[in-house]
Amino acid sequence: MIPLRLHYAPDNASLCVRLALLRAGVPFETVLVDRRSRAQDGAAYRAVNPNGLIPALETSDGPIWETGAILLWLADRHGADLVSGPDHPDRGAVLAWLFWLSNTLHPALRMLFYPERHVTGDTGPLVARTRERVAAMLDILEEGSTRLGRWLGAGESSILDCYLCPMLRWLALYPVGDAAWFDLARWPRLHDIARRMDDRPETRAATAAEGLGPTPFSAPSLPNPPEGSAL
Amino acid sequence: MIPLRLHYAPDNASLCVRLALLRAGVPFETVLVDRRSRAQDGAAYRAVNPNGLIPALETSDGPIWETGAILLWLADRHGADLVSGPDHPDRGAVLAWLFWLSNTLHPALRMLFYPERHVTGDTGPLVARTRERVAAMLDILEEGSTRLGRWLGAGESSILDCYLCPMLRWLALYPVGDAAWFDLARWPRLHDIARRMDDRPETRAATAAEGLGPTPFSAPSLPNPPEGSAL
Repeated sequence: MIPLRLHYAPDNASLCVRLALLRAGVPFETVLVDRRSRAQDGAAYRAVNPNGLIPALETSDGPIWETGAILLWLADRHGADLVSGPDHPDRGAVLAWLFWLSNTLHPALRMLFYPERHVTGDTGPLVARTRERVAAMLDILEEGSTRLGRWLGAGESSILDCYLCPMLRWLALYPVGDAAWFDLARWPRLHDIARRMDDRPETRAATAAEGLGPTPFSAPSLPNPPEGSAL
Repeated sequence: MIPLRLHYAPDNASLCVRLALLRAGVPFETVLVDRRSRAQDGAAYRAVNPNGLIPALETSDGPIWETGAILLWLADRHGADLVSGPDHPDRGAVLAWLFWLSNTLHPALRMLFYPERHVTGDTGPLVARTRERVAAMLDILEEGSTRLGRWLGAGESSILDCYLCPMLRWLALYPVGDAAWFDLARWPRLHDIARRMDDRPETRAATAAEGLGPTPFSAPSLPNPPEGSAL
């Protein structure tokens, strides 16, 4: 049995997976992807993830990529109540919100952070519209979060917490110098979910590893990682 | 046990779920969502899917939405070899591509079909760049498809086939009158996957129900549905 190996860069989407690995209590190694030299675009990394995106998780079954896929695989395989199991009555609702985080909120964040990859020329109209879309998405999640019971913002973190809270952090920080439009206080339930995540043991361990500061989700500051670069 | 109820519109993403339901051989009812009156935006439909998007599947465990979530739930719960199970060595790879279809390819298609929802003003630069991005995505899938064994384009369809083939269809048809840039022949393996899907029993049944024509995936024509409207 080879150990799980997380390909990561500080404060990248690999943070979601690190939180889940720590929460599940499963041993893992990390491999830094050097964003400064764009290692994620190189042949070695693309042999692990053909899309050149961070994270990827190497397992004894081969590499897995896509944050949502890794989180779900990890939770189903290594348990620890991170997700409702395949036969649980809450499975459908948790999967719906997991895919929503992955295909609705996360791509919108990528459009805010990397607008130049999505449109040629002036990125202003895309960014303006995407901010409106993100706010509308969070309105829907704020309302939907009340029906997720133990699977979001409850006593122990779930894969939904591990996926959502870093995204709330990034909205408050990125792009550097251009995130002032975002105020998490507008969504009190989501703000509360971020506050609870701040205080969890897996958060303290991830914060130490990636230099994320004291309240990394509810009131974040830019990272100061011990190795590597977030951008 | 209440029957599964698929909220659908012809040639919408509900087609992916219909194919999987037919393939699994599980009984289901359909409920037409009338796109002409924008029923998907109404309070009744939003009580089922708060995002106002098609499809949704009502189950005895409550409603499930997001195409990828429904497909995975259905395959895990109702089996029939539509997906590698949670303990299968191929689970991670299949989840990676399922999430990729959901969060990479599908959102790009939405940007092609509904660019005015993503950017204010001139949609031309967004559409031009998105076409390039979609082509690059299909290059990656063309290569990756060789490593998916029985889970894509094999003897029996999987949830990856059920999700991918309708998207290949839509790329060839939509937006109506503005899809000539797309030529599936550029990706021979994907073209072959679409051809195989054309001939399957679940495709013939879905084609009859939604008016999709003789070769709905490999060489599609605009739908002529017995009820409802695709747009």
